[in-house]
Amino acid sequence: MNEKVQFEPEALANMLSYQVRLIQIAAYKNFESRTKGFGTAPRYIGLLRIIESNPGTNQSQLAKAVCLDRSSLVPILDTLTKEGLLERRPSKKDKRLRCVFLTPQGADLLSKIQSRVEEHEKYLVEPLSQAEQETLLRLLRRVSDHVRSEDIDSGALDNVA
Amino acid sequence: MNEKVQFEPEALANMLSYQVRLIQIAAYKNFESRTKGFGTAPRYIGLLRIIESNPGTNQSQLAKAVCLDRSSLVPILDTLTKEGLLERRPSKKDKRLRCVFLTPQGADLLSKIQSRVEEHEKYLVEPLSQAEQETLLRLLRRVSDHVRSEDIDSGALDNVA
Repeated sequence: MNEKVQFEPEALANMLSYQVRLIQIAAYKNFESRTKGFGTAPRYIGLLRIIESNPGTNQSQLAKAVCLDRSSLVPILDTLTKEGLLERRPSKKDKRLRCVFLTPQGADLLSKIQSRVEEHEKYLVEPLSQAEQETLLRLLRRVSDHVRSEDIDSGALDNVA
Repeated sequence: MNEKVQFEPEALANMLSYQVRLIQIAAYKNFESRTKGFGTAPRYIGLLRIIESNPGTNQSQLAKAVCLDRSSLVPILDTLTKEGLLERRPSKKDKRLRCVFLTPQGADLLSKIQSRVEEHEKYLVEPLSQAEQETLLRLLRRVSDHVRSEDIDSGALDNVA
């Protein structure tokens, strides 16, 4: 038995929210150690992938996609822009909207970091069989769709328009 | 289909690390809205529960239990102490160690917040059957035990002594 697991009250061990938080913290440390020298990009790899797949998407759509308020997202985009990975241009349709694109340097970084991302993902699911990995992801996606749809219904994201 | 899910590249949807991060962000917002008026305690409910179950545990053991460096944990303990929820006393066995206890006010807050925590947990797993909930937790615990044991092996927590 693992010392820390005994240390943990059973009520916590059985809480999805607690397990998700712990994995997030512990896994992120591991990922960070694999991706030294890539600036702040590793922290925002999901966001960068969404921008890559949706070039020209606006800041409000991006905020929704990663479940952040616009006020939390904008400083992150500022940092990634300063690091030369992103650029923002006013929308041709609506000047109030700012459209986000990867720079060539950003695209290059994503392609270089990809093998580290894959190694990390492999490491996370190491203790599980292929079938278990698929089950885990399927169940997590149902939970994540659920919590994200709630966000929209409750108007929690109204201020990102 | 959910608009945001289509927005998400398939590669991300199939990454455990990404799903965990998204659930963490989206679920935390929901939890925060349920627990207004409780100060910063809701953010550290897992930590407070561990202290409740292990009265007098020292700061280094706590840091390990929640996968944080001691340098990240201490300011959190400072805040919770200022809010009157915790107190720290030097260990009788080893004066260099500081032992952490809940105050009566901290214990009272935990008991008052418990129903909100349970409501939140119920909300998270709402889309899943009882059997699916158990499967999801069992698989997540295996991943979390795996990433946490790695932390110890790699010496990543050496500086918490």
